[in-house]
Amino acid sequence: MSVLIVGTTALDSIKTPNQENPRLLGGSASHASVAASFFSRVQLVGGVGEDFPQKYLTLYRKHGIDLAGLQILPGKTFHWSGEYEVNMNHRRTLLTELGVIETFQPRLPAAFLDAPFVLLGNIAPALQHAVLDQLRKPKFVVADSMDLWINIALPELLRLLQRVNGFVLNDSEAQLLTKEDNVFVALKKIHKLGPKYVIIKQGSHGSILSGPKGIFICPAYPLSRVADPTGAGDSFVGGLMGYLAGAKGSIDSNLRRAMVHGSVIASFCCEGFGLTTTTKTKRAEIQKRVKELEKLTRF
Amino acid sequence: MSVLIVGTTALDSIKTPNQENPRLLGGSASHASVAASFFSRVQLVGGVGEDFPQKYLTLYRKHGIDLAGLQILPGKTFHWSGEYEVNMNHRRTLLTELGVIETFQPRLPAAFLDAPFVLLGNIAPALQHAVLDQLRKPKFVVADSMDLWINIALPELLRLLQRVNGFVLNDSEAQLLTKEDNVFVALKKIHKLGPKYVIIKQGSHGSILSGPKGIFICPAYPLSRVADPTGAGDSFVGGLMGYLAGAKGSIDSNLRRAMVHGSVIASFCCEGFGLTTTTKTKRAEIQKRVKELEKLTRF
Repeated sequence: MSVLIVGTTALDSIKTPNQENPRLLGGSASHASVAASFFSRVQLVGGVGEDFPQKYLTLYRKHGIDLAGLQILPGKTFHWSGEYEVNMNHRRTLLTELGVIETFQPRLPAAFLDAPFVLLGNIAPALQHAVLDQLRKPKFVVADSMDLWINIALPELLRLLQRVNGFVLNDSEAQLLTKEDNVFVALKKIHKLGPKYVIIKQGSHGSILSGPKGIFICPAYPLSRVADPTGAGDSFVGGLMGYLAGAKGSIDSNLRRAMVHGSVIASFCCEGFGLTTTTKTKRAEIQKRVKELEKLTRF
Repeated sequence: MSVLIVGTTALDSIKTPNQENPRLLGGSASHASVAASFFSRVQLVGGVGEDFPQKYLTLYRKHGIDLAGLQILPGKTFHWSGEYEVNMNHRRTLLTELGVIETFQPRLPAAFLDAPFVLLGNIAPALQHAVLDQLRKPKFVVADSMDLWINIALPELLRLLQRVNGFVLNDSEAQLLTKEDNVFVALKKIHKLGPKYVIIKQGSHGSILSGPKGIFICPAYPLSRVADPTGAGDSFVGGLMGYLAGAKGSIDSNLRRAMVHGSVIASFCCEGFGLTTTTKTKRAEIQKRVKELEKLTRF
């Protein structure tokens, strides 16, 4: 089956303590779609400006990503510029030029309306709603978000949480949303907001799933060098949704392995700037790291 | 087999955002010994003052801890007083009264000299050396330490690392010692200082072992409520060493399960002030949490 992914399609200029990289392909939908493409067909929904480099369209297509839902709009592509601090866990936004994303309205082509798996990647909750409004009968919908939307669009986000099966956020966002410092209490509080499945990401410490089958502690792949963690969270949830869409069997029986596959794609993402390493990754390398993670956690 | 444990034997007055508890039994050797006592015989080496409450000697004995190496010295027992902040991950020392610990010199009874498993719990490196100097031929020696000794006794600590098989420290101490933010790089740097086995503790995120069999990512048991994390690290390494001393087979084949058992004892420690919950824990409850951790991490 295929997965429909909506989110930002952006150009990212990323500074780290060691390097600068201007106008890389970025955005939540780009990272998530490339990640998902290793496991299933992907239908991308987004909007870019007339300045969007042709080479990035080629890159999407190379990954078999269906671009029928990608609008090329008058104006400039969303451009984010940020800087990572020494420990790579904290980032600082230097510049945000919304460009076409400011007025972007997702329009789903007819072929996308029956998408079974849907990832509402990180973008304004109103746009996540707009996608859901168009879909006929999705089987499994997961939303991602960020601190910005918790701060400036909380009512729309809370309404969204009642419409999705799963919600993914990081530990600081979970704390911001629930005012709760303990991650297991936060998980319970978020369930009460609607989603049956909640995943809290903890960066290099991995992630935690809470669902009908209880808690799953998902490891992060050990990395001795992190070049750029931008997009790691999007890669994680994209890989997770792609894996689910591509796997046989029930959601519950596939979700843990889906998370581990997402975690592995996120590790490749962290090893290069933007999508540079992820796009070069081979399926066999992913399987190798999944197997390694099995060994690293077995006792 | 038995495990010899040296460390502080103290009275802890602990404040958290919710509660105060004066003069609880504390100290690295107390926590580690009680933790180890669930799995093997324990030989405690330490020093207390004349004010040390009889009830705590009774408590040690209830856990079958051999007190032949516990000196009752003229003066007052080491007293630590501290306060935890809201998130329970940062603590602040309010008061440290060294008392008899200032002049304490470990003296091993004859029956302790052939101890096969040795835990050099957190105490001044000079005293850890003094214990090692007396031992005949220990099979497996693990040292714990803390930021204080890295800051004020680094040469003795570095010399100690060349004499032990394993070293356990937390992530911020690993960073302080190696000037390295990445935990996997820090592990490699610490191996170069001597120990074949290095474990970095990451609080509620679990711990990571690096040894001849590679990396092991050890989970923390999920807790919805942490009453007081004081002694959790000592409980972890105490449980680990007790498990190793009590288990058949090689160190390498037992170490992962030993860490998981240590992690479980640490979870009980966190649920009560000082040792109040740990001392009430039943062996069956430990086994139950170990089994749960297996389920929580399997994929």
